[in-house]
Amino acid sequence: MSETIGVRNPRTGIIDYWITPPSPQKIAETCQNLRQAQKDWQQTEVEQKIATLQQWKQALLSHKTALINTLAVDTSRLSESRLEFDAVISSLDRWCRWVPQLLSVPHENSNISFVQLQYQLVPYSLVGIISPWNSPLLLSLIDTIPALLAGCAVIIKPSEIAPRFIQPLMQTIQTVPQLNQILTYIVGDGNTGKQLIDRVDLVCFTGGVSTGKKVAEAAAKRFIPAFLELGGKDPAIVLESANLDLATSALLWGSVVNTGHACLSIERIYVAESIFTPFVDQLVQKAKNLSLTYPDIETGEIGPIIAERQAKIIREHLQDAVDKGAIICCGGTVENLGGGYWCRPTVLTQVNHSMKVMTEETFGPIMPVMAVSSPAEAIQLANETEYGLSAAVFAGSDTEAIAIAHQINAGGISINDAGLTGLIHQGEKNSFKSSGLGGSRMGKASLRRFFRKKLMLVKTEEKPNPWWY
Amino acid sequence: MSETIGVRNPRTGIIDYWITPPSPQKIAETCQNLRQAQKDWQQTEVEQKIATLQQWKQALLSHKTALINTLAVDTSRLSESRLEFDAVISSLDRWCRWVPQLLSVPHENSNISFVQLQYQLVPYSLVGIISPWNSPLLLSLIDTIPALLAGCAVIIKPSEIAPRFIQPLMQTIQTVPQLNQILTYIVGDGNTGKQLIDRVDLVCFTGGVSTGKKVAEAAAKRFIPAFLELGGKDPAIVLESANLDLATSALLWGSVVNTGHACLSIERIYVAESIFTPFVDQLVQKAKNLSLTYPDIETGEIGPIIAERQAKIIREHLQDAVDKGAIICCGGTVENLGGGYWCRPTVLTQVNHSMKVMTEETFGPIMPVMAVSSPAEAIQLANETEYGLSAAVFAGSDTEAIAIAHQINAGGISINDAGLTGLIHQGEKNSFKSSGLGGSRMGKASLRRFFRKKLMLVKTEEKPNPWWY
Repeated sequence: MSETIGVRNPRTGIIDYWITPPSPQKIAETCQNLRQAQKDWQQTEVEQKIATLQQWKQALLSHKTALINTLAVDTSRLSESRLEFDAVISSLDRWCRWVPQLLSVPHENSNISFVQLQYQLVPYSLVGIISPWNSPLLLSLIDTIPALLAGCAVIIKPSEIAPRFIQPLMQTIQTVPQLNQILTYIVGDGNTGKQLIDRVDLVCFTGGVSTGKKVAEAAAKRFIPAFLELGGKDPAIVLESANLDLATSALLWGSVVNTGHACLSIERIYVAESIFTPFVDQLVQKAKNLSLTYPDIETGEIGPIIAERQAKIIREHLQDAVDKGAIICCGGTVENLGGGYWCRPTVLTQVNHSMKVMTEETFGPIMPVMAVSSPAEAIQLANETEYGLSAAVFAGSDTEAIAIAHQINAGGISINDAGLTGLIHQGEKNSFKSSGLGGSRMGKASLRRFFRKKLMLVKTEEKPNPWWY
Repeated sequence: MSETIGVRNPRTGIIDYWITPPSPQKIAETCQNLRQAQKDWQQTEVEQKIATLQQWKQALLSHKTALINTLAVDTSRLSESRLEFDAVISSLDRWCRWVPQLLSVPHENSNISFVQLQYQLVPYSLVGIISPWNSPLLLSLIDTIPALLAGCAVIIKPSEIAPRFIQPLMQTIQTVPQLNQILTYIVGDGNTGKQLIDRVDLVCFTGGVSTGKKVAEAAAKRFIPAFLELGGKDPAIVLESANLDLATSALLWGSVVNTGHACLSIERIYVAESIFTPFVDQLVQKAKNLSLTYPDIETGEIGPIIAERQAKIIREHLQDAVDKGAIICCGGTVENLGGGYWCRPTVLTQVNHSMKVMTEETFGPIMPVMAVSSPAEAIQLANETEYGLSAAVFAGSDTEAIAIAHQINAGGISINDAGLTGLIHQGEKNSFKSSGLGGSRMGKASLRRFFRKKLMLVKTEEKPNPWWY
């Protein structure tokens, strides 16, 4: 029997929403129906698939207010919820534009003159998506859109921490009958996620490293592909030649956007010692200009910490840093305001790699800044964690910054800006170390994850087999 | 302490060769040295990498006789050993031709006008290859060549059943100093393979399904990519319109080449009932024309069964089929001649899917032929195993055959021929079901498995970040 799960409101701390995960039988039945409908969807011409997704786009646009309003309760953020919505719409358009060419594979000649190579792309029947609470709408759909266009059916289990948007989203799906057959959401926690992995042909997971590693093992046990986008501890390197005003603005944004609840947020900053003091002064000054979206969600920039357990981690990392000698320049505490947990943009100095805040994912608006005596030292420190998701480098010239970026073990590196990987979804990239596994989720290559390429070797002349007779 | 492993000679049944697996300490040290040398190899210009591999090609050519002679003891096959050698040489040339273009990735414009996308390809440091006994030379190098050109160091552990070729091959490697730093073989059984997985950054495995699934789990536990090419139970479908002479010749070749010791060998044949009798008659007649390479390896076509445990499986499948009513038209027994196990080309009729010979991998020169009343029945039966490696379809026209192929769940399908996937390595393909996991080992896409793509998002104009300030 499935138990109802209470959902905490991040702004009030009150449990004001409940979800009831489907029973195992219900999940099995849902998956069977999706598989059945996928057979037709797979055969549907790509133009019709695009038309279906464009119909859905219209439905999303006409439910925009309801969607953003529930997202704003789930995450207690308004402007970022609007950005999420816009990113989904532009992702739909981008994939619809890309996909006709990507799905048409030309014949090839082979090295044996009378054999021609022809291809058929065969989608996986049922794709399972397990998505996190930090950008609930966008991250539940980022893999879904290419999977649908590849011809898969998709079942999505978002995080139990931010599930309110599912209801209006399901309404948009239900307005598009063909889509409604092959795309659905289910609610639940890790237990439901585990059941999902047992029912699908391919799994995409976005979330933390420890759960991600469990997903990898569960998928391997079932011998299905797993594509994992996990956490980060993104470093920024600021060279002596950098434009300070640009660097401090971009890094502040890259660190505190979404209250730091982004896998690609900047979590540590290495600054050339010659500019360390003016850098910190400027960063602190700009950080102090930002305010909480409290009590009014329409004002300020920094929303509450969404997940209660994250508040605990942020507090723990701050305490650990202070205990080991870090200096708090601004922010620095997790406050309880009106039932929610809040943390103002926090700049720390006198930090080092013995502190959790420098090596473990904090996922909050925390900017530990460390002086380095050389670019080589910065690179060494940047590479000194188990993560390798993204990074940022600031220098007086792109060439100088790119030379540093070449030595950083991370999939996406912003040059003279921060967090660009979150805004530009068209470039292909792979995670390093514990930050992910599997093909690129971004760029055209992302589609490739969702189908098998079948090769037909066509003997175009009737010749007896030359190798035997 | 590592124990010496005795190696059985497939022709004499005598243990006449011994290998001593390296100690865990020795494996650790070898891997560390490879990793160290890989740093330079990664920085080496692609032209120099190609030059190094071409030097190796010359060394291979000058050791050709020694290599083929040891392979001929390992596998007790002469003509196939020559084919293996030639396939490696042509693979070296093909990859050297392909790689300059594949490793040069152009810049891209992004949807944000002042951000340009640049790429860096970062190879995995150390690739581990675990390869099988059925084509020991070719299958130890098929993934190795692109991995080396991508910039990886490679450590290979071939099967303990056919390890004699390693010694002359290591000699060729030692003649090329730069290669000798970044490529090595180690001997051992599954235990050594397991240790290898614990030491590398990426693993390629070719072998049976049950071991392959264990490799997938071990790799997931370590959170490293695994590329698996496993077994097959390749079906052939012969439609009423097929050219019988062509079909029987090609299927005989596709079934008995390498004594059926090929993942891509045809293991079951579905024939339109209207042509069933003439098909079987012709196949049996042609099968009877083939003879064992006994006592002289230079004569005949069918070598001994290489692995003792495979002889047991073939015997078991044959007995099971006969017990359940199958008729042996020719061949049909595993004989012991001079200490080796031998099986003549075997045609079986009156077979059905209750028999192991129709659903489990036999890996011998066995051709069970089943009459089908319609193409739909043939397709259904073809898809009715846990495997999905490759297949073959014969029909009067390519169009007719391709329409059938489109409905078969297999990665590579020969049209009006059999086993073309073993001869043409340039087409991309993915396995279905239990036959494999991960990206394509064949074709240009194969190179993509060995590096991470790093994306640099370069802000080309100095503008303040527009999303925050």
